[in-house]
Amino acid sequence: MDTSLAIAEVHLTPILIADPPLLNTQGVHQPYTPRLIVEVVTRGGVTGVGETYGDGEYLALARPLADSVMGLPVTDVNRLFSLAEAAECAAAGERGESGEAGEAGPGPAAADVAAGGLRGVRNAAKLRLSVVSAFEVACLDALGKTLGLPVHTLLGGKVRDRVEYSAYLFYRWAAHPARPAPEVPEDDWGAALDPSGIVDQARRFADAYGFRSFKLKGGVFPPDEEIAAVRALAAAFPGQPLRLDPNGAWSVETSLRVARELRDVLEYLEDPASGTDRMAEVAAGRARTGLPLATNMCVTTFPEIREAFARDAVQVVLSDHHYWGGLRNTRELAAICRTFGVGLSMHSNTHLGISLAAMTHVAATVPNLDYACDTHYPWQTEDVITRRHAFEDGCLTVPDAPGLGVELDRPALAALHRRWLDDDGTLRERDDAAAMRLADPTWTTPAVPRW
Amino acid sequence: MDTSLAIAEVHLTPILIADPPLLNTQGVHQPYTPRLIVEVVTRGGVTGVGETYGDGEYLALARPLADSVMGLPVTDVNRLFSLAEAAECAAAGERGESGEAGEAGPGPAAADVAAGGLRGVRNAAKLRLSVVSAFEVACLDALGKTLGLPVHTLLGGKVRDRVEYSAYLFYRWAAHPARPAPEVPEDDWGAALDPSGIVDQARRFADAYGFRSFKLKGGVFPPDEEIAAVRALAAAFPGQPLRLDPNGAWSVETSLRVARELRDVLEYLEDPASGTDRMAEVAAGRARTGLPLATNMCVTTFPEIREAFARDAVQVVLSDHHYWGGLRNTRELAAICRTFGVGLSMHSNTHLGISLAAMTHVAATVPNLDYACDTHYPWQTEDVITRRHAFEDGCLTVPDAPGLGVELDRPALAALHRRWLDDDGTLRERDDAAAMRLADPTWTTPAVPRW
Repeated sequence: MDTSLAIAEVHLTPILIADPPLLNTQGVHQPYTPRLIVEVVTRGGVTGVGETYGDGEYLALARPLADSVMGLPVTDVNRLFSLAEAAECAAAGERGESGEAGEAGPGPAAADVAAGGLRGVRNAAKLRLSVVSAFEVACLDALGKTLGLPVHTLLGGKVRDRVEYSAYLFYRWAAHPARPAPEVPEDDWGAALDPSGIVDQARRFADAYGFRSFKLKGGVFPPDEEIAAVRALAAAFPGQPLRLDPNGAWSVETSLRVARELRDVLEYLEDPASGTDRMAEVAAGRARTGLPLATNMCVTTFPEIREAFARDAVQVVLSDHHYWGGLRNTRELAAICRTFGVGLSMHSNTHLGISLAAMTHVAATVPNLDYACDTHYPWQTEDVITRRHAFEDGCLTVPDAPGLGVELDRPALAALHRRWLDDDGTLRERDDAAAMRLADPTWTTPAVPRW
Repeated sequence: MDTSLAIAEVHLTPILIADPPLLNTQGVHQPYTPRLIVEVVTRGGVTGVGETYGDGEYLALARPLADSVMGLPVTDVNRLFSLAEAAECAAAGERGESGEAGEAGPGPAAADVAAGGLRGVRNAAKLRLSVVSAFEVACLDALGKTLGLPVHTLLGGKVRDRVEYSAYLFYRWAAHPARPAPEVPEDDWGAALDPSGIVDQARRFADAYGFRSFKLKGGVFPPDEEIAAVRALAAAFPGQPLRLDPNGAWSVETSLRVARELRDVLEYLEDPASGTDRMAEVAAGRARTGLPLATNMCVTTFPEIREAFARDAVQVVLSDHHYWGGLRNTRELAAICRTFGVGLSMHSNTHLGISLAAMTHVAATVPNLDYACDTHYPWQTEDVITRRHAFEDGCLTVPDAPGLGVELDRPALAALHRRWLDDDGTLRERDDAAAMRLADPTWTTPAVPRW
């Protein structure tokens, strides 16, 4: 084995990135969102980069994993999973806790929308996979750069030259309720709180990026208002694919009513209700609505697949290489969906250009990518790469440069890390409900079903 | 993209290899079995090798695929599937047939044991995958040799250093009913037609190769005789894992009876009955027998998984990188089994050292390889590689040399190809029933259930 491929250094850089005041059923995005940038440096002097969630519990897992991958060849990505598990057990042991890291934390039953519930089930195994994903992407980036091969080639080669993304529409305010610092610029998108605001936002997305499909983040206003917004989009963009995602905020009855009312214009309805039980009930009404249900909440881990597929609770899984443990696991998820006749697309949380590159590489290799992928990327004004990705006709051209095809902007990374260091801790954990309380001190995370 | 990775030449070499007179429910192995050796040569001058079934229908698919991969980089293994499908359509078009190559041929319902039925369902898509597998393995071998990386590294790295195999016991005759040519040596294993013959065979396997688990190919004699053979093995090798595989020859009732009688000594029962319906019925009796059912007949393609898993018809899938379309598809199958709580092991048909190397590489990377793998390899006295694989404690050490770690023995390959050229056509298609008719002119392929 070529020892120049061995990992000689790992750098973990937590950062805070500017985020607009986008509304969802739990509250509003904070002015800053934490992300973690992972760099692996090989003995051969090649650096690979990865990106994942940056909240404290992810950092706590990333640190012992960074120690335990020292010396591992960047080719050995299959071993990251057991190394992460072992590192976690060891860290727990040092803290005097049970060394059982396997499936700790609340199971799917506790995953109803609560703090962090937008990301679906939240347990130790899933957090671990989210951390592993950044290491896997960084290893593949370093390997690709070393070999002169793009990451998609390391995944068996692209089957398409462009990956289509969808415009991600949000109800939003013009400004955050509390401006974090005077040097943070507010964006010029203005508020969008009604159908015409959403249509204006969609037009700007379509004009600037060429997006041809539109997803509205719902669960913010009573369903009839969101139905009206989707109807307005359908009128403004006749025949173009539309989606609505209330993050599990609705009852089964409401979900079925919205599905019936929007069946002629939606390509899918995403997570109308919370949990596999309710989703299965809504899906059972599909015979009447014909509308597929997509999810990024009730199926976000491999252990959740079996029951959800057996009950036909979801017809489209929105993959996310962070949740699922990397690009190769994402391909495995795609194979499972293909085998079970379930559609596949891609989910997005607030992320930067490293993750968008990773999403694009893996999406390019999956034959059964059935829908345009989600991305928050256009909402992000800051980045840690030197050249931002540019959408054309709503698509990104799959990079053929070695590795991910992105270059780290070190001054930008340092500045965003400085912001993280300077934060008093309140914004190092994403908490949309806390952000909402700055505008409405009585706000608490709504119980589901909310409507 | 490095153009030196592009495929400049493809060589297809059909061969006939010596095979002992091993008995199964359809008949007896012929003196020679057809195999196809695929070589891809890159513009950089590196040769990669693969191996698959060599019957005429496989050759007919391999030839157009060989043409259509010219210029393809050996990294682009994801594209082999669509290229094979397109090549097949084009070839069918030239023959004036329907261009629809997708799922032509008999579906699972026609897969009951019939000619070729030992290999499970037999349709165009599966034949195509068997051909693609040899090209994929050859591409990975060439890529690994070019990069100086073993094939397991191209699959994300090994998670074990040794892969365990099982002794594959057969009822057999001492000699073929018709010796094909005077220069073909007969082996010195002698006949094995009763419990003591099987135990002797197992002892020789254990002594020579260190195998610790034993699989008996059944379906040859009435079930009570085979039960007696397994009992004799259990007495001779107490506590060691045993398996019995009658290739779907039994009724549900017989299957359940054998399962009850051998539940204390078998680790699994393989394909006792034919087809998903019967297997599901037998599996339903598992609550009483506790014995898992394994299969390499009722689930040999991705489209068969959904129903078989939903009905819990099988508890162990015996993967086979030939059937499933290569090493990367085998990893996807492993991910599916892991997700659905189904065990995984590996099937074998008569094969040479190239395929054994490929099996070992992929097996080394799969975390959930739950049982020792099958292999016919010790029965093969001929090979096309310069250094035969050597079992130690029933295991093969995973090769860390570049590519598969095998070298083609060109004089041996030429001699086995010469044999194929010289054959009058009768042995170019494997036909165990035809071989049996040389001993018993009244023999026809038994209908199932046979007992």
